[in-house]
Amino acid sequence: MQEQHIVSSFDRDLESIQALIMKMGGLVEVAISDATRALEDRDEELAQQVRHRDKAIDALEDQVNSEAARVIALRSPTATDLRTVLTVMKLAGNLERVGDYAKNLGKRTSSLVQMPDIDGASGAIRRMGREVEHMLRDALDAFVQRDVAMAEDVRRRDQEVDQMYNALFREFLTFMMEDPRNITACMHLHFIAKNIERMGDHTTSIAEQVIYLVTGELPAEERTKGLMPSYSVDL
Amino acid sequence: MQEQHIVSSFDRDLESIQALIMKMGGLVEVAISDATRALEDRDEELAQQVRHRDKAIDALEDQVNSEAARVIALRSPTATDLRTVLTVMKLAGNLERVGDYAKNLGKRTSSLVQMPDIDGASGAIRRMGREVEHMLRDALDAFVQRDVAMAEDVRRRDQEVDQMYNALFREFLTFMMEDPRNITACMHLHFIAKNIERMGDHTTSIAEQVIYLVTGELPAEERTKGLMPSYSVDL
Repeated sequence: MQEQHIVSSFDRDLESIQALIMKMGGLVEVAISDATRALEDRDEELAQQVRHRDKAIDALEDQVNSEAARVIALRSPTATDLRTVLTVMKLAGNLERVGDYAKNLGKRTSSLVQMPDIDGASGAIRRMGREVEHMLRDALDAFVQRDVAMAEDVRRRDQEVDQMYNALFREFLTFMMEDPRNITACMHLHFIAKNIERMGDHTTSIAEQVIYLVTGELPAEERTKGLMPSYSVDL
Repeated sequence: MQEQHIVSSFDRDLESIQALIMKMGGLVEVAISDATRALEDRDEELAQQVRHRDKAIDALEDQVNSEAARVIALRSPTATDLRTVLTVMKLAGNLERVGDYAKNLGKRTSSLVQMPDIDGASGAIRRMGREVEHMLRDALDAFVQRDVAMAEDVRRRDQEVDQMYNALFREFLTFMMEDPRNITACMHLHFIAKNIERMGDHTTSIAEQVIYLVTGELPAEERTKGLMPSYSVDL
């Protein structure tokens, strides 16, 4: 991975930006975990904390972007170094969106506490959230270690998250058909499940950027393009 | 807007990247228009064309990104010039996502043609799509002309799109409660409406980046952060 640097302080700059990314990733992992726990425990206070804490994630994204722009302007990196800096900005964008989905989940939890409980749904959603949280941790580890095999593993696991989402979607349909009083709650829960599935897509996008960063290549037909992998849009 | 350039060919490079952005924008506008028309006319062939043509939009995003990276490496832009190049990469990312949503809409149309028609829904969705299409055209014009007032207008109009979405959401709820046989079709239509609302959010994000590019400032509390404006997540 290492190339000779005309300006050797580039590495130090890059390391400090990577540290910001890891800090951001840590906050996002906590947000996913707390948001799904708040839903399962119907804990409105925790849901509200998740919403408030999203500001810190947004602020870190701004910091990554301005640090990265500063490094580009100051060091004029080329080739792999430039690619690394641009990748870091994209990762920050993905993390910010995952954080937004967690915030969104917190908002819906506040609405859901006033609605009938849908049997087993919030437990299943929490399991789905935990899987995405682990994927995210591994995707960021893969980034720090430039570990392509680990990144490939994250991509593979996203298919399991998609399967969990598909199963939940069908379950919600039957709950709604059984009793119209479930419809509104199921619509919210469905959105939450979909949002977690999207968190998985953004996490996969992080993994793919790691692969691209290390290898310089990714088969076009296998790219998830961040938001809309072809295997998850049919439901 | 103009600063003195140490390398004057930067302007020519930038213009050619901006031309790519406008070409991408044109394809995305057509995709929105065709996708919503295919839904209203239950035209599966047109829906399929929208899906296929998304590849061209993705390819343009890749081209913008590699051109932008080339310009950064070659010209080492600083200050406003660097900000412009980084903005252009973000705009390409937003456009690519709007294109993905249109592709997604095309996929759902293929499922929906086999389901009962929901009275008036596809017409309302097409109107919503047309509004977003016009917003997108104006947001890109605002970019080319560095027109803050026009960009502000796009932001304002996104609230109308959100209202259209909210009205549709409530309508779908009543259709589902009236007759459980409508549930599956309404879930798909609801997703389509939500996706168009998200297209509006990405368009607003383009407008906000124009404002930021020109003024260097945007009030933090008013930012939509691209995907999740606070006024659209409660439903």
